[in-house]
Amino acid sequence: MGLKTRQEYIRSLKAMKPNIYKFGELIEDVTTHPATRRTVESHARGFDASHDPRYSADFETVSTFTGERIHKWTSMMESLDDIMGNSKMKRWMYRFTGTCNGGLCVGWNASNVMWNITALVDKEYGTAYQERLKKWILHSQEKGLVVAGGLTDAKGDRSLRPSQQTNPDSNLHIREVREDGIVISGTKAMICGVAASNEIFLLPGGGYREEDKDYAVSCVVPRDIEGLTIVETRRPSDGREYENGFDIPETGITQAYLIFTDCFVPKDRVFLCGEFKYTGRIIEYFTANYRACIGACVAGQGDVMIGSAALMARANGLAARTFSGKMVDMAVNNETTYGMGIGAMALGKKGPGGMWVSDSLLAHANKVHVATLPYETKRLCQDIGGGIVETGCFPSCKDFDHPAYGPLVRKAVQGADRFSAETRARAARLSEWLTLGAGVPGCMHGGGSPDGAKLVVRALTPVDQFAEYARAIAGIDEAVPEPDKKK
Amino acid sequence: MGLKTRQEYIRSLKAMKPNIYKFGELIEDVTTHPATRRTVESHARGFDASHDPRYSADFETVSTFTGERIHKWTSMMESLDDIMGNSKMKRWMYRFTGTCNGGLCVGWNASNVMWNITALVDKEYGTAYQERLKKWILHSQEKGLVVAGGLTDAKGDRSLRPSQQTNPDSNLHIREVREDGIVISGTKAMICGVAASNEIFLLPGGGYREEDKDYAVSCVVPRDIEGLTIVETRRPSDGREYENGFDIPETGITQAYLIFTDCFVPKDRVFLCGEFKYTGRIIEYFTANYRACIGACVAGQGDVMIGSAALMARANGLAARTFSGKMVDMAVNNETTYGMGIGAMALGKKGPGGMWVSDSLLAHANKVHVATLPYETKRLCQDIGGGIVETGCFPSCKDFDHPAYGPLVRKAVQGADRFSAETRARAARLSEWLTLGAGVPGCMHGGGSPDGAKLVVRALTPVDQFAEYARAIAGIDEAVPEPDKKK
Amino acid sequence: MGLKTRQEYIRSLKAMKPNIYKFGELIEDVTTHPATRRTVESHARGFDASHDPRYSADFETVSTFTGERIHKWTSMMESLDDIMGNSKMKRWMYRFTGTCNGGLCVGWNASNVMWNITALVDKEYGTAYQERLKKWILHSQEKGLVVAGGLTDAKGDRSLRPSQQTNPDSNLHIREVREDGIVISGTKAMICGVAASNEIFLLPGGGYREEDKDYAVSCVVPRDIEGLTIVETRRPSDGREYENGFDIPETGITQAYLIFTDCFVPKDRVFLCGEFKYTGRIIEYFTANYRACIGACVAGQGDVMIGSAALMARANGLAARTFSGKMVDMAVNNETTYGMGIGAMALGKKGPGGMWVSDSLLAHANKVHVATLPYETKRLCQDIGGGIVETGCFPSCKDFDHPAYGPLVRKAVQGADRFSAETRARAARLSEWLTLGAGVPGCMHGGGSPDGAKLVVRALTPVDQFAEYARAIAGIDEAVPEPDKKK
Amino acid sequence: MGLKTRQEYIRSLKAMKPNIYKFGELIEDVTTHPATRRTVESHARGFDASHDPRYSADFETVSTFTGERIHKWTSMMESLDDIMGNSKMKRWMYRFTGTCNGGLCVGWNASNVMWNITALVDKEYGTAYQERLKKWILHSQEKGLVVAGGLTDAKGDRSLRPSQQTNPDSNLHIREVREDGIVISGTKAMICGVAASNEIFLLPGGGYREEDKDYAVSCVVPRDIEGLTIVETRRPSDGREYENGFDIPETGITQAYLIFTDCFVPKDRVFLCGEFKYTGRIIEYFTANYRACIGACVAGQGDVMIGSAALMARANGLAARTFSGKMVDMAVNNETTYGMGIGAMALGKKGPGGMWVSDSLLAHANKVHVATLPYETKRLCQDIGGGIVETGCFPSCKDFDHPAYGPLVRKAVQGADRFSAETRARAARLSEWLTLGAGVPGCMHGGGSPDGAKLVVRALTPVDQFAEYARAIAGIDEAVPEPDKKK
Repeated sequence: MGLKTRQEYIRSLKAMKPNIYKFGELIEDVTTHPATRRTVESHARGFDASHDPRYSADFETVSTFTGERIHKWTSMMESLDDIMGNSKMKRWMYRFTGTCNGGLCVGWNASNVMWNITALVDKEYGTAYQERLKKWILHSQEKGLVVAGGLTDAKGDRSLRPSQQTNPDSNLHIREVREDGIVISGTKAMICGVAASNEIFLLPGGGYREEDKDYAVSCVVPRDIEGLTIVETRRPSDGREYENGFDIPETGITQAYLIFTDCFVPKDRVFLCGEFKYTGRIIEYFTANYRACIGACVAGQGDVMIGSAALMARANGLAARTFSGKMVDMAVNNETTYGMGIGAMALGKKGPGGMWVSDSLLAHANKVHVATLPYETKRLCQDIGGGIVETGCFPSCKDFDHPAYGPLVRKAVQGADRFSAETRARAARLSEWLTLGAGVPGCMHGGGSPDGAKLVVRALTPVDQFAEYARAIAGIDEAVPEPDKKK
Repeated sequence: MGLKTRQEYIRSLKAMKPNIYKFGELIEDVTTHPATRRTVESHARGFDASHDPRYSADFETVSTFTGERIHKWTSMMESLDDIMGNSKMKRWMYRFTGTCNGGLCVGWNASNVMWNITALVDKEYGTAYQERLKKWILHSQEKGLVVAGGLTDAKGDRSLRPSQQTNPDSNLHIREVREDGIVISGTKAMICGVAASNEIFLLPGGGYREEDKDYAVSCVVPRDIEGLTIVETRRPSDGREYENGFDIPETGITQAYLIFTDCFVPKDRVFLCGEFKYTGRIIEYFTANYRACIGACVAGQGDVMIGSAALMARANGLAARTFSGKMVDMAVNNETTYGMGIGAMALGKKGPGGMWVSDSLLAHANKVHVATLPYETKRLCQDIGGGIVETGCFPSCKDFDHPAYGPLVRKAVQGADRFSAETRARAARLSEWLTLGAGVPGCMHGGGSPDGAKLVVRALTPVDQFAEYARAIAGIDEAVPEPDKKK
Repeated sequence: MGLKTRQEYIRSLKAMKPNIYKFGELIEDVTTHPATRRTVESHARGFDASHDPRYSADFETVSTFTGERIHKWTSMMESLDDIMGNSKMKRWMYRFTGTCNGGLCVGWNASNVMWNITALVDKEYGTAYQERLKKWILHSQEKGLVVAGGLTDAKGDRSLRPSQQTNPDSNLHIREVREDGIVISGTKAMICGVAASNEIFLLPGGGYREEDKDYAVSCVVPRDIEGLTIVETRRPSDGREYENGFDIPETGITQAYLIFTDCFVPKDRVFLCGEFKYTGRIIEYFTANYRACIGACVAGQGDVMIGSAALMARANGLAARTFSGKMVDMAVNNETTYGMGIGAMALGKKGPGGMWVSDSLLAHANKVHVATLPYETKRLCQDIGGGIVETGCFPSCKDFDHPAYGPLVRKAVQGADRFSAETRARAARLSEWLTLGAGVPGCMHGGGSPDGAKLVVRALTPVDQFAEYARAIAGIDEAVPEPDKKK
Repeated sequence: MGLKTRQEYIRSLKAMKPNIYKFGELIEDVTTHPATRRTVESHARGFDASHDPRYSADFETVSTFTGERIHKWTSMMESLDDIMGNSKMKRWMYRFTGTCNGGLCVGWNASNVMWNITALVDKEYGTAYQERLKKWILHSQEKGLVVAGGLTDAKGDRSLRPSQQTNPDSNLHIREVREDGIVISGTKAMICGVAASNEIFLLPGGGYREEDKDYAVSCVVPRDIEGLTIVETRRPSDGREYENGFDIPETGITQAYLIFTDCFVPKDRVFLCGEFKYTGRIIEYFTANYRACIGACVAGQGDVMIGSAALMARANGLAARTFSGKMVDMAVNNETTYGMGIGAMALGKKGPGGMWVSDSLLAHANKVHVATLPYETKRLCQDIGGGIVETGCFPSCKDFDHPAYGPLVRKAVQGADRFSAETRARAARLSEWLTLGAGVPGCMHGGGSPDGAKLVVRALTPVDQFAEYARAIAGIDEAVPEPDKKK
């Protein structure tokens, strides 16, 4: 069928076996449990948009395999337009939900990256990974799957490689290769949107050497696979998700630790199995696309921050236009990460399997901004909104509703007469949530750290070549090489 | 007696009548209730330090009135050394608690500001406010009081003055002047440390004109005065204060809405009553000192962020020195707000009553940094710590302790072998709390907004005089005045 | 012929009549006069590159009209690839020369913009401007012309529109419309590369109303047209251009005031004549492309600054890699303006005449960076190089060559033994020139001011729409419009 | 006499022997030669101010030795007020001249630093340096001397210590110790204000070890000492100093290379001679005071930039107040470096000889701002002024005065009618000079590099202690030390 509705999507989640925990409790139904229903709601808005004529152009497309209509997040990205569509869809999703929707993002990118990689691996090793992958992609397109992606391992001691860790389960690895599949164990950390996903696409978390070849594994598993324990992380103010009232929005995000204990993955779902030589390339392709596209995520959240700041200004009795200088600064930040990401895509090219690979240098330079500019945008959002926003500093919904002193509280929080106190409170809580609460995206380390990005920028900046241009302009005749290292 | 112990302090709080609410509930004992005991603990550390020879020089002094030893926060600040001592004490308090201790800060500054103001008012109007104030200060010194300060009103519609508000209670005002005292009503908002305080020093929230003269009131009230309803605000992650375990530290801050309904204040505790002409001067003196000293607060919190980042680096298996470049950037930020504040003090002078008044231009320029640099320091703290810090992204204490999957979780969060998983978790939660949780100080709007500070900088920058210097250097003979406004 | 050689180019310049002045002197031959020969040399390197197989792909192409090989800077830009080629060529030119080459840039963009505009104007007014333009473009392609572009007027009093100025010649305008052409007068200011150009493409300097319709003029004129007085501007350290020796490089830039006094332009060269309604659109299209592409210029100059910093580090006895952190910061700055420009192009689309128009929002957001990031890049270049670079602080070439104390000076300026003192001096002068001298590009106001760009960002940021997204997420039911303006 | 007039000062310079060269030419009279007369004029304004009742409080004082009135720049700085006076005087000097006046600054600081150092050295080694120094200070006070200071050596290869250099003259050193004095050779580089000075105070350029003990030398020499060759450096646009007209102001700065060849210094003028152990302390004390005070220099220049920007706005036809947001940003920058410097002084204390030593941590943190904020202030100055300012982009004075086309040029540069074209030109040239020309102070590397300052900040930031505060707040029981280095 390809295009699913919100209801079909929710039914598909309800049908899964419970294996997600939070606060020491097993979550029976992710679609209704307070810890997870908000992220389900967020992802469901992607299904709504797929059927909404205002947005559907950015949410659905035609399968290049079958010609059927499919959700964009299950599609192959063969052209610049395709990958720009990825970026545009994410900006919309942040505008609709204010936060990350990992299940419509990471698995999508992972499947396209692995298409390029399997072309290389199959060529070198005579494997048939791409055929397996195609089969799974067809399944994913037909079912309209939401697929989280697991790249980041728990890692253990940062100064050691996976095979050097005391605890081998600090990183996901192959425990056994069988005729019919593989057995995996280990931990993926901080994985977004798992609770709202049908499946999870797993990738190696780094570029590995031979001694780490057991860690060179890529496969895709159902979220409720046997042997997988999922523990949702606690984040700022997530306790409010267990309450009713205006202290938290109806959308949300989850980030999980995935603890695999001897999970069996049938071979049809395995796309890399020990070919460590290509793990670096996986990271290269994945991050190039991911760090190009993530600019759209923080831009979309920044759009909502501009909007939230405007609401606050008005609720405070002022015009939003009073703050247009600051809003322009916010907008420039948003357009910077969005636009540099688009630039990285435009300078990219088709990869070895035909799927688009963005330009690494620009993508990683963009990551530096993604890890800094949103902090400034948040600061400006707090600046415009006033003290009530900065630290979410006003009484709770329960105090508003208290029979005795509730009316006093409402009067105290009242701003401009033309709006209710609750409107001001809701706007303030939104700004708080976006800047200090669970709406905080992982812009700093999400998809890797800015320091890692700087290493790539460093590697891709041809300092010696630039020195040659300078030497020519300066009219220097002698060679000017680096000094001898031993010096 | 002057110098109180932690125990005496806590007893003094227990003796008060309950009038503080949070989450719809009356708090019977602030020293034990989860919503308030952390701020009491924080303030109590100030009493500990007063008796600790390592720190007492910065925490106790001799009364200029009686020669008795007193807590510094009840003293008069007559010299540069005195006010630098204010700054130093606050930096220590942030290092001890990681957060704001309003009860050792705002009332102190307020009493000194009002000493200068009452000198002026008494001189012009023949009142005897200073004598009343002296009597109260002696009482405060003798009892070793913790005194919160209430400056910021709830304000209502920001585009209207107090007397124009639909709701007169948006700002604190005098309802009645009696022979024996005054009756006040209205709302002070976002007042720090009230739950840990014995009394509250009230100041007008702005520079007022004649039509707002009922709002020109300064007095001091017991925290449990009849007619006062205190509602504590909800802040990021404050729900954790109701839990046990490592997800939140043992120190903390509260910020309250103070809703006064026909409260009677005896005249001995009233230091301004309608003399609107001096309200602007109160704001000027108060902000000059406050914005000079607040640089020490954010510096002290930044010190702890450097420390917390060092803990995280080590728990991750790395050396703190790996990040010394970023730590230097953090340190420069800390020293900037601290040092500019000290500079503002050094360029200050004795006010009309003999108490020190810092330089307004430097103090307000400093406020601009106080509202921006800590955001960068927080960003760097998250940068160094990794994704686990950025969004507090790992399982909760309850998950660590779960009998079934707890051991899995601990293994997953384990970093360097030489530390326990809980150490890494505690360090990560501290960084989260400092950058995203309840440890977030009101550095943006606390003590007024950066935009307000910029207005002062604008007013105190003699552009025309600077144009004259430029004209002389440029050798321009003709006058170069501003164009006619009508143009 | 289409593709010209350096020699042919220089011959074409020599054949022109002298009408350029500097320092009170008429320049007889721009190719040999010290004030202009460096900019000619710079532009000549574009001809070299057209014939150099390493670079020719970015310097020559095929005419869409004739199928002949032509210099890229005379081509039509119909696709994203075409306009990205514009950006790439400029980055190369900066790498080859360290500075701006206006004659290979502005006329090119102007002709493409006017192609789109004439499509609209011809359609509305039944004019045949596009046919005239095509004829001229064919001429330009065939002759391989270098064409400066004149947009910015002298403007006079910034608070007045052109028709309100006391001096009508503050802006270029039509004095008379004749059967066979038009007569123009007025001043274009700060026009780059005129001395190296064969012709000058003139555009209106703003979006005009009916009363300013005489100022709505676009045409192209030979540089040596009768009635045109060109006065080259004096820039930092341009006096060195009159010297020999290493104190200044062999490349350079010129910026001119073009003072037109009753110049007759035959009608075949006139592409807009009073149709004021379309002047705003000219500015829109021109700046969208120009501010997208200018990111490449400052990036290319930044590349040379990285190189120059590397030379300095080595000449000082250190390795360039010691400064890789700062060089990464420089590279991120370069890639930001380059990449956002590419992003603006990728989000653009074909204009009404079929030529590509970049996205305005991204292009103008990029201009904000173009006006700020290069300042940081320059600061870092000075930081790495040391005091000798910062203010160009060391003796002159003449002192190096002095028979008596020259040897002392050389010894004093000597850095690492393995390089000559002159190498260190040349590298230092290059950094000085790039950051403080004539190599300073007009990154701040070139192609318009950053404040103007911010106005566009403001206009194109849908704050009300963003407020609606925020309102939906916050769950606010009531409408939250701006307050009544009269309030 | 102590207090000299401008005329007496100029006479004292005329009486000296010529030993200064620039552009291959010996300068016979520094007070009239175009290359040096502007720096003499600048310094002379300090003498004017000493006699001007508006400023004299900051320019003259009473000798602590004799009770006579003296110029401040010859005084001892024993108290916080004394050293704040140093800062204030420098801010005034920049306001009067727009640039650095090294002869009123470095020698002053050097003599005070050496007072503290000689106290230590005399105590350890039984020398009598302080007595010699006192004698010289009395001479300096009596004669009202202008004394440049030489700290920075030419250094040669940055990776080698002085004694390792191929060329021993890369650093100043003792060639011979005689009964009656010492013989010195070597090079001091980039020394400000030498041409306007009577004498030069020499200090070692680094903290040296035993093998470099010949480089541990401090003494004071007449500017025209036998054996000293002074070569003035070429700086941006300094060629204009040889012209008349408005293209450059009447004030200015010089920076010289001092090449000493076997210069004999009588022992009464020698204050350190081989006691290498104290060279580090000299650097520590010198930089603590210098980097505290230099904040005032860049602040004063920033004041003039605000003024110059205001002139430009008005000359362009606009009001300065239109740009008040940017001017506030400029003012905050100015007050930051000024205020942090004052803070460093206020946290300082009397040194071992009784002279004030500022706080190193704050002083070096301030240096980081001194090396960055002025770049932003300059950018804003260019931003406000328009393209005409950014690159000094308009015709020269000679073109204004050309009989034929001069009137055209004046008309073209005319802005608002109410001012002359020359006024606009002069204002533009001033902004150009301040931001790109010879008015550029050595804010980056002057008094040492920002990287050196960061090393001090790093050394003085107690990361381990901060980690302990964090550990206590986080409730971590186990110790968290750095990992073993070998790992």
